[in-house]
Amino acid sequence: MKVESRTVRAIATTILWAALPMLLGQVTAQVARAAEKPNFVVIFCDDLGYGDLGCFGHPTIRTPNLDRMAVEGQKWTNFYVGACVCTPSRAALLTGRLPIRNGMMSAKRRVLFPDSKGGLPASEITIAESLKSVGYATAAVGKWHLGHLPEYLPTAHGFDSYWGIPYSNDMDAVRGFPNYAQTARKDANYFAPIEQYNVPIIEDTKVVERPANQHTITRRYTEKTIEFIRDHRDEPFFVYLAHNLPHIPLYAGKEHLGKSRRGIFGDVIEEIDSGVGKVLATLQELELDKNTLVVFTSDNGPWLPFHTHGGSAGLLREGKGTTFEGGMREPTLFWWPGTLKPGVRMEMGATMDLLPTFCTLAGATAPSDRTLDGYDLTPLLLGKTDKSPRDRLFYWREEQLYAVRVGPWKAHFITQGCYGIGPQRQEHETPELYHLGHDPSEKYDIAALHTEQIKELVAIAEEHRQSIERVENQLIKR
Amino acid sequence: MKVESRTVRAIATTILWAALPMLLGQVTAQVARAAEKPNFVVIFCDDLGYGDLGCFGHPTIRTPNLDRMAVEGQKWTNFYVGACVCTPSRAALLTGRLPIRNGMMSAKRRVLFPDSKGGLPASEITIAESLKSVGYATAAVGKWHLGHLPEYLPTAHGFDSYWGIPYSNDMDAVRGFPNYAQTARKDANYFAPIEQYNVPIIEDTKVVERPANQHTITRRYTEKTIEFIRDHRDEPFFVYLAHNLPHIPLYAGKEHLGKSRRGIFGDVIEEIDSGVGKVLATLQELELDKNTLVVFTSDNGPWLPFHTHGGSAGLLREGKGTTFEGGMREPTLFWWPGTLKPGVRMEMGATMDLLPTFCTLAGATAPSDRTLDGYDLTPLLLGKTDKSPRDRLFYWREEQLYAVRVGPWKAHFITQGCYGIGPQRQEHETPELYHLGHDPSEKYDIAALHTEQIKELVAIAEEHRQSIERVENQLIKR
Repeated sequence: MKVESRTVRAIATTILWAALPMLLGQVTAQVARAAEKPNFVVIFCDDLGYGDLGCFGHPTIRTPNLDRMAVEGQKWTNFYVGACVCTPSRAALLTGRLPIRNGMMSAKRRVLFPDSKGGLPASEITIAESLKSVGYATAAVGKWHLGHLPEYLPTAHGFDSYWGIPYSNDMDAVRGFPNYAQTARKDANYFAPIEQYNVPIIEDTKVVERPANQHTITRRYTEKTIEFIRDHRDEPFFVYLAHNLPHIPLYAGKEHLGKSRRGIFGDVIEEIDSGVGKVLATLQELELDKNTLVVFTSDNGPWLPFHTHGGSAGLLREGKGTTFEGGMREPTLFWWPGTLKPGVRMEMGATMDLLPTFCTLAGATAPSDRTLDGYDLTPLLLGKTDKSPRDRLFYWREEQLYAVRVGPWKAHFITQGCYGIGPQRQEHETPELYHLGHDPSEKYDIAALHTEQIKELVAIAEEHRQSIERVENQLIKR
Repeated sequence: MKVESRTVRAIATTILWAALPMLLGQVTAQVARAAEKPNFVVIFCDDLGYGDLGCFGHPTIRTPNLDRMAVEGQKWTNFYVGACVCTPSRAALLTGRLPIRNGMMSAKRRVLFPDSKGGLPASEITIAESLKSVGYATAAVGKWHLGHLPEYLPTAHGFDSYWGIPYSNDMDAVRGFPNYAQTARKDANYFAPIEQYNVPIIEDTKVVERPANQHTITRRYTEKTIEFIRDHRDEPFFVYLAHNLPHIPLYAGKEHLGKSRRGIFGDVIEEIDSGVGKVLATLQELELDKNTLVVFTSDNGPWLPFHTHGGSAGLLREGKGTTFEGGMREPTLFWWPGTLKPGVRMEMGATMDLLPTFCTLAGATAPSDRTLDGYDLTPLLLGKTDKSPRDRLFYWREEQLYAVRVGPWKAHFITQGCYGIGPQRQEHETPELYHLGHDPSEKYDIAALHTEQIKELVAIAEEHRQSIERVENQLIKR
């Protein structure tokens, strides 16, 4: 068939002109978004130890995706959580506030349980709410643990959607099954029947599966996250992917089961790592990587009484449930190609800093009508300074201030190991003093050599204690 | 001046033809070398712990060059030394044999001292001798500790040249100075006057400096190594750079002193790291990087009684002087761009494997008239297999077999911590049993659950013991 070439050219020109506004519009939108509203992906593990990733020194767990994230992004070696157990740590991340300020920390019940009637108060402002106010699409996928009643679920706290187990994966335990710790002690590859833990999966506010098939839970969380990213590729988004694992009971999908050298614990971490790889690959495929900040960390240190089913804090002391470094310092990665200068960051940071930092990056306003315990890390993240605005951390356990860190100095007012296995509780008239730069393992108490330092830390702790107003406790309601 | 253009062309042609054989010869030599004889650089530290590098998880020591080496090359997480203290470990590296086989290990004197009359026997064949036999230029720079009398020095063992302190940097101690451990306990930044340790620097066989200026020793070792590489760029070479540090007493050069967050110990590691960067940069500048295998490791684990002046084994148990993993597993890197597939290697390897491996790569013949304890890692290094020829390690301490590892299983026949601070010596009728894959920290003795495994390990250990012929002890001669 012969077509007049002039006609072809004319048609092409017409199409081009017709399409131009659309093409230009898209480009403009992308440029505007890149400059104004980055996406945020927070991948949050449960009971992952400081030493459990390859890039943080584990010898038998393979984490090539997280290792790559560390090299392409920033590996933070002094990054903390707001509490040494689940519920309060999650409250801290999402609100930028110490959980002692909003009733999410208790000496009587350390976390929320299936019979709990409390949860994160409606008056609290979460990262999701802050970002929503400036047009973000928001999703929570995975473990919530800030109240499983409808009024406390993610959809009541600024998330457009929720899909996950609303508390720990070892809750709703059914009688008549073998004791997990005892079985774990005997078999590093053991996994329990899923019927042993009758935990639900909730979609928004409705139970959609019970017991949750935990063998596939890590994969499904990753898939839900990727689905959300694909669905919201054209608008700014925030997705909070909170894995239930490696909290016990441990389960890995078929692709990973029995594959690691570290038993099922390693299989679990390798599956999480693989999921991280898929999330990053999706961002790259959609060309969103240059406009998305991905943060990887965990809620608290390794749960040590579970033998090889618990993780490792590496060279840090103790683990979950304690205010030693192993309980509250987490292996943390920030990834944002083209924006973050790759390398190791040894300055202090904490999950509570994410709220003010995300607000700045998104052009949102962080709450100003209440005390925030988070600092805006933007200047440090973007390389405008080498100094962190965070120079201190307050280590609360249950309802008491156990320790304080200022710069490299850490004073312990009370020390106590993990329940059942660690050292007994001890109150110190003269605090123990450690220099976390010289002595990251908290081995050498040098209080006797630095009385001035102690005085300063005691004063800072006292001032901080004075700033706390006690409020209604949410964890004891049932 | 006018010159006939034909004449110019004729001259140029003549020069070109005259130079051609030389040019071609050089190219041919380079091609042949690239295919046949790679260079070897071994950088060996002293008392560096498994957890002391950034890429092995240290939170406050910056090692960007070693981290880069880990990413561009291979990070080995199950790489061992042949003994848990200095002299025997070095003998093992250089001969590919357990020191119990050549009298370089003793229960009475654990290492050589300035009053020692013994050393590595002339009958032993070192890596340097093996490589020399196929035309390599060889140099030893740094700590020797295999005999300081002329007949034992590097120049008597296959090295063309030597420059360094012939034993540990805390020897030849002069009376009247403060106790190092006590001072170190008080001050993480302390360094002793160099006069406190009257150690010599020997060039080939002559003392050229005494006391050695240890403030500049790390820098000078690096410089000597680079000088050797430049001088021998056109022939195959082997250089053994054995740093005296971070063995105590600690010293750092001006550029690094006070710069790390880890006190002087960190300053020292950061200076070593910087030196590694300079060596790699030199190889790249000279275009030798594609033809040079660089290996970085250390002689044994951290020396724990020295407070913050000792290193950290990370998540591994105990340190120097012990047969726990912290005593004998080292942070090890292999770098050979274009030849080694980058990544993490979790298979077993050991310093004793370097001799047979280098021999294969260099086309030299490894000694066949004696028992070698090293395995040829070439197929694994080059990616031809994922299985290490080394599936076992024998952990000797002094003159007894304390433990054996086969695959992931490790049986302890005798356990004992570091002298003075670790657990007391204990012989076990039923060995303790650990699974180093599931439990790299040797926390959970599972002997009671695996009696078959114990039997197998006991039999392998017994067979190994039978293979040892006791010889004249070199360490007790004085």
